[in-house]
Amino acid sequence: MKPTPPPYPTKGVSLRELRGGHVEIIAWVHDIARDRGGICLTLRDASGVRSFKVPDGTALGEVTRESLIRIKGFLSGDELRINGCEALVRGPKELPVNLSKPPEDPKSFARYSYLLIRSPKYADVLRIQQWIVHYTREFLYNEGFVELLAPMISPCSDPGLRGARKLLTKLYGSDYELMSSVIMFKQAAAASFERVFFVARNVREEPPENIRTGRHLCEFTQIDVEWALKGMFDVMRLCERMIIYVMSKLMESHGDIVHRYNPDIKVPEAPFEVISYDEAVEKLKALGISTPKGKELTQEGERKLSELYDEPIWIVEYPKTSRGFYYMEEPRRAGYNRDFNLILPRGYGEVVDGGEREYRYEKIVERIKEMGEDPSRYGWFLELAKMGIPPSAGFGLGVERFTKYVLGLKYIWEAVPFPKVPGITMSP
Amino acid sequence: MKPTPPPYPTKGVSLRELRGGHVEIIAWVHDIARDRGGICLTLRDASGVRSFKVPDGTALGEVTRESLIRIKGFLSGDELRINGCEALVRGPKELPVNLSKPPEDPKSFARYSYLLIRSPKYADVLRIQQWIVHYTREFLYNEGFVELLAPMISPCSDPGLRGARKLLTKLYGSDYELMSSVIMFKQAAAASFERVFFVARNVREEPPENIRTGRHLCEFTQIDVEWALKGMFDVMRLCERMIIYVMSKLMESHGDIVHRYNPDIKVPEAPFEVISYDEAVEKLKALGISTPKGKELTQEGERKLSELYDEPIWIVEYPKTSRGFYYMEEPRRAGYNRDFNLILPRGYGEVVDGGEREYRYEKIVERIKEMGEDPSRYGWFLELAKMGIPPSAGFGLGVERFTKYVLGLKYIWEAVPFPKVPGITMSP
Repeated sequence: MKPTPPPYPTKGVSLRELRGGHVEIIAWVHDIARDRGGICLTLRDASGVRSFKVPDGTALGEVTRESLIRIKGFLSGDELRINGCEALVRGPKELPVNLSKPPEDPKSFARYSYLLIRSPKYADVLRIQQWIVHYTREFLYNEGFVELLAPMISPCSDPGLRGARKLLTKLYGSDYELMSSVIMFKQAAAASFERVFFVARNVREEPPENIRTGRHLCEFTQIDVEWALKGMFDVMRLCERMIIYVMSKLMESHGDIVHRYNPDIKVPEAPFEVISYDEAVEKLKALGISTPKGKELTQEGERKLSELYDEPIWIVEYPKTSRGFYYMEEPRRAGYNRDFNLILPRGYGEVVDGGEREYRYEKIVERIKEMGEDPSRYGWFLELAKMGIPPSAGFGLGVERFTKYVLGLKYIWEAVPFPKVPGITMSP
Repeated sequence: MKPTPPPYPTKGVSLRELRGGHVEIIAWVHDIARDRGGICLTLRDASGVRSFKVPDGTALGEVTRESLIRIKGFLSGDELRINGCEALVRGPKELPVNLSKPPEDPKSFARYSYLLIRSPKYADVLRIQQWIVHYTREFLYNEGFVELLAPMISPCSDPGLRGARKLLTKLYGSDYELMSSVIMFKQAAAASFERVFFVARNVREEPPENIRTGRHLCEFTQIDVEWALKGMFDVMRLCERMIIYVMSKLMESHGDIVHRYNPDIKVPEAPFEVISYDEAVEKLKALGISTPKGKELTQEGERKLSELYDEPIWIVEYPKTSRGFYYMEEPRRAGYNRDFNLILPRGYGEVVDGGEREYRYEKIVERIKEMGEDPSRYGWFLELAKMGIPPSAGFGLGVERFTKYVLGLKYIWEAVPFPKVPGITMSP
């Protein structure tokens, strides 16, 4: 069999590499505007956006924004004399969104994200996200952690959902849950690898009102780390070093892009400040914000607290009634966990949660019952716990929240391709 | 807040790093056997398995396999004199599976995968899989591809399922599908990044009889690559270079482990042989295997064909009735696609499928209708196609199948953590 060319022109040189002389360009029409003495044609491809002056009177045909066009011409400086222009793909008469200024309204953003992905800012965000995840992996690989591919469904998933609901499905008629957290899988794997992590996709039906926080998504990604035979302060130190490594590497390799969107960003210094949950509650009380007894800090409280700081801070020892059954109770202080959250400063709020895990079968069953849950819902995990799981500590870092922080974004749906925003669904 | 240590002993030195003298060991009891004159105690941690001779008469308490123990003692050579032994986690009286020889029966394998993950072979496989995915990313990053985080659910997913069924869920009462392929998302993203890929988790309810092939899973991972304004032969060459890069890097960095499981492995040479679907059908006919007209090769046919070769081979131009609607029809040959599969030799079968995409709105709608499907099921994608998507070509490589090939595994469920085997479900 001999190779045959595709039935359409293929791409040669990118806009960025384009030099003067005879040129053949294939690119998207990002914008087209007539001004005095000519046409300003702004083209876009993966290398970026570039504007050309096209002499007045040039026949461009019915070229609309978001047409994919092929131009033959002569380039000198930014003047492009066009000898031939053909639309490989014809753009719509009217674009439903402005790619240079994506909509603030989350419904429009989610609805047209498949188109907005072409907007230069959104594309930059997703490129930076690629490097955030890459440097996170690099750090964890260097620390000897093994990465496993995360499951998508399981007979049982994480219960600690803070008001969100699990999504359900059927496999051969049996009930399965979509992964809302890999916590139980991390604990199982830590028995083998000691140091293990997943880049795990999770899905949860968030209360629709969480759209207002600008930091909740129904589908999100966690860097989910677990370390056997280590304690909470070991993994907190690991997490600090990870965040500092990722941000330092990112500034080294892509600092120009990061600074363009977030001029104020700086790499934090370790160790981060540690305050207890009780101290946090007191601080909020002083601000006139009350925290319901035995519950997580409120969304509002977390945000307010986060505004008090200029560096990330740890909050430790949450009441055990506020978290999932799998946390280890602090033996020195009944009713409180050996657990933590990392709060990003300047209003960005929680980005990491974690702690030490309860690994003793009887204690796990006791905790499940205390939470008013049915132990039979956690069948395979309890079966394993009965055979033995190691003590461990770990954490999950929200990739989209971290991306939002690094780039100083206003809304979390700008920090994920094809976002699922609380309360909003799409028809097929 | 001052750090407090966890309420259990933490790990110091690994078994591999352990030198003679006074030692403190925390490790799993992999095996324990009494022989003449002493006890052979085989311990395991993330660094591997190590056997010690323990003098006869040593009080080891009720130490069973898969107990996590802490030993204080004196090590000289492989003789370990024990002064103290404590079980941090007590193993079960009876293990349901043998960690040194995982069960061949897929039901037991899937049922106890959370325990089998501790078996040295399975752990090695998953470590190698980590590096396969890592080198794949490294190759694609070097080639300028942007990686996006893959969605888990979508209002509509891929229809080309070869007899498998989609899994369904609800989000705020609306119908969603679990991702069975990111094809439509790749095409949307290729308009922005030109070169794009996902490491995508997919889930499909496979026909239960596919358990017999040993190469189907209900949940699997694809390296899903798309390249705008390129043709099928461009992406086939890219895929060849990717496979060669990954295997070469793997042999360089982890050749000892790969060779332990697969002494015959060799890195293939490019270009791989290309035969047409029609030629493949003829070859199979000569072997007495018939292919139903207009259908994919049968599972049996694909395996037989794969046994004829010692190197990977491309099969190109499948009948359009055998594949999803999104492939480009070959303009020189009506009824056939500009598409391909890569078949691994020696019985391993298909590992890659791909081709050029139909990008013209009217043609896509026509193809959907030809397949007897309802265009309204593909709402957002058709809306986008109407606004314009670029011509592109791409492929998906099955990570578990590739892992199975590289390590010469017998069954695909050995090549994924927490496998979902066709026809088998787990209770919670």
